[in-house]
Amino acid sequence: MSNRHITLPKGFLAAGVRAGIKLKGEDLAVIAADAPAATAVLTTTNQVFGEPVRWIRTILPKGYGTTRGMVINSGCSNVCTGKAGYRDARTMAADTAALLHATPEEIVVASTGIIGHRLPMDKIRAGIAAAGEKLAARDDDAVARAILTTDTRPKTAVVQDRIGGRTITVAGIAKGSGMIAPSMATMIAVVTTDAKISPKLLHTALSAAGGRTFNAITVDSDTSTSDTLAVFASGAAGGQEIEADSAGYRKFVSMLTETCEALARAIVVDGEGATKLVRIAVRGALSDADAALAAKSVANSPLFKCAIHGGDPNWGRIAAALGKSPAKVDPDTLTIKIGGITLFARGGPKPFDVKAVEQHLAGSEIDVDCSLGLGKGEFTAWTCDLSREYITINADYHT
Amino acid sequence: MSNRHITLPKGFLAAGVRAGIKLKGEDLAVIAADAPAATAVLTTTNQVFGEPVRWIRTILPKGYGTTRGMVINSGCSNVCTGKAGYRDARTMAADTAALLHATPEEIVVASTGIIGHRLPMDKIRAGIAAAGEKLAARDDDAVARAILTTDTRPKTAVVQDRIGGRTITVAGIAKGSGMIAPSMATMIAVVTTDAKISPKLLHTALSAAGGRTFNAITVDSDTSTSDTLAVFASGAAGGQEIEADSAGYRKFVSMLTETCEALARAIVVDGEGATKLVRIAVRGALSDADAALAAKSVANSPLFKCAIHGGDPNWGRIAAALGKSPAKVDPDTLTIKIGGITLFARGGPKPFDVKAVEQHLAGSEIDVDCSLGLGKGEFTAWTCDLSREYITINADYHT
Repeated sequence: MSNRHITLPKGFLAAGVRAGIKLKGEDLAVIAADAPAATAVLTTTNQVFGEPVRWIRTILPKGYGTTRGMVINSGCSNVCTGKAGYRDARTMAADTAALLHATPEEIVVASTGIIGHRLPMDKIRAGIAAAGEKLAARDDDAVARAILTTDTRPKTAVVQDRIGGRTITVAGIAKGSGMIAPSMATMIAVVTTDAKISPKLLHTALSAAGGRTFNAITVDSDTSTSDTLAVFASGAAGGQEIEADSAGYRKFVSMLTETCEALARAIVVDGEGATKLVRIAVRGALSDADAALAAKSVANSPLFKCAIHGGDPNWGRIAAALGKSPAKVDPDTLTIKIGGITLFARGGPKPFDVKAVEQHLAGSEIDVDCSLGLGKGEFTAWTCDLSREYITINADYHT
Repeated sequence: MSNRHITLPKGFLAAGVRAGIKLKGEDLAVIAADAPAATAVLTTTNQVFGEPVRWIRTILPKGYGTTRGMVINSGCSNVCTGKAGYRDARTMAADTAALLHATPEEIVVASTGIIGHRLPMDKIRAGIAAAGEKLAARDDDAVARAILTTDTRPKTAVVQDRIGGRTITVAGIAKGSGMIAPSMATMIAVVTTDAKISPKLLHTALSAAGGRTFNAITVDSDTSTSDTLAVFASGAAGGQEIEADSAGYRKFVSMLTETCEALARAIVVDGEGATKLVRIAVRGALSDADAALAAKSVANSPLFKCAIHGGDPNWGRIAAALGKSPAKVDPDTLTIKIGGITLFARGGPKPFDVKAVEQHLAGSEIDVDCSLGLGKGEFTAWTCDLSREYITINADYHT
């Protein structure tokens, strides 16, 4: 019996199958809405982007619209494959559309895995047909597994609450472990909900939720070529459509943010070689944008990430990483805490309980608080430590 | 018998001694000009900067002037130590000045090592006095060793050529291994020359030489709080003063660039955990600035650096790193070569001799060429591979 998540919101079916692209395990997933669903997507900012991303930008040029669902494969990203690769992405959409009596333009496509290789289209097409036969079984765990690459575990999230007298479910699955950087960090995440909401407002909600979740994480500062975050809203929960600026909308954004944050944190926890989840909260910046630059500068510092791995309360590396960021930083108004304990305040180091800080650093969740003392901007970034295992994974992985 | 380098240009004495700051070895150096010397400095862009950097900016607010030399210690960087730390830097200058019958404001100061600790001033002052007694011995190798921290070897360079009928010598020493990033990458480098040149023109020459050498290297993307590059010109070679826009000036810039490039490359070769020197040449960018952004994006990509470590011809990671940079990049006009062999051209992968590329990647010097096909901008960056040893050095190093 599978755990229910991605098809827990009313109005969705899904299947994950083995097409034979990866060496083993499921590697192709179809997520299908019973009827046309409001759809919003965020895609990578990398200028070298995959052909599936090109397809998404063709069918949803504004980032939102109405679709019938999504097809995803792992093991091959269909990036740097030119016009032939674009035709392959379209064929994936067309074959999936045929299952659902839809048009190709109603199907979102995502691929993840190695760059620069053509998709094995015979296996892909057979996989899509096989997925079609398994949609009704709703084996959600197989779907979550089918989108993984170097991930060590599936990533799922479910949030339920009431909006306008109806129970609304928001559920998501994600993959991502390496090539994870703050600009649309996840490689692929899919969120389904049975809320009733227009495509445009869904896109606004997604942008709000993504900015402080997926765009706040980093494993290795490398922005992927395939990052795709898609949300589908079936409206099958019924009730009134969620309106802009309403209490219901705010609750929906909060639920969507909670779902995205759970998936984003799960990606960092499963970061290549990661042994610790590190939260870096910056307050007192001149602006939220400055706070984000400062937090991400710390989150991407290899020296800081190594110190966390070694359990070293090295506030000097935090100060140096803040100072090198484009954000305004002044040591004389700066305070740095690890695990709630002040190590540096207003220009100078403070005596601190070394054992207490080392005990915090020995845990699996590390809290770093930086107060810049300059304004009201704030931002929280998440990262992981940098371990020998990261090198092993990425030096021994071959093209 | 010591090799002569930093005192090979006429008009300089130097000494390196053990003051007892580091666990072992020499850790304090004095480099003295016999008479007031034209001096130019470039210092870190990090907003959290050391008190020695504050001292340099006080005595040389425009980055150039006339001084009598420099005192440098390793083992403690005198960063985040507040007003007391600034007084310590001034005391170092004053004690060194007393040896040379100069004023404190005529002495450049640099410190490198751990952040957030006060200097052991009793040891420092005794060390400066001891250095004073050894200046005439000119044990240049002891000077080069005294400025090292996690470096595994001293870094020196000597360039000689004729300008205006006189033999001119340019010599340098450098230290740097971790916390090395493209913005004034070296932690400390000192260059001496007996050329006759004004302080202002010397600064112009230094800026030209530094931009394509020290500012083109990266070990780990972490800009140090203490980066200092200082050049002293004694004029003791005699002859006419070098004039702006002259053939002699161009030759001098070329000699200074050659010296800086040799030291900068030596820093990368000795990068923490480095096993390979990687040259990343970007051509065909919209501008030189764009080329620098693109080259540095590749040079700082952990995924790329792991691939180099593993000997993997992973052009996909190069394409992705170019694409995530702020520089304009278009896959359709992009060509990527490793070891002179084309792997990717104009939007698609090319069949290549895998064995030949792997043979090149098995060497100690790796060449990556990226042609963006958009304009005439070019820049060459140097980096090293990312190995398990980097993690070991930086996770096990404790505050």
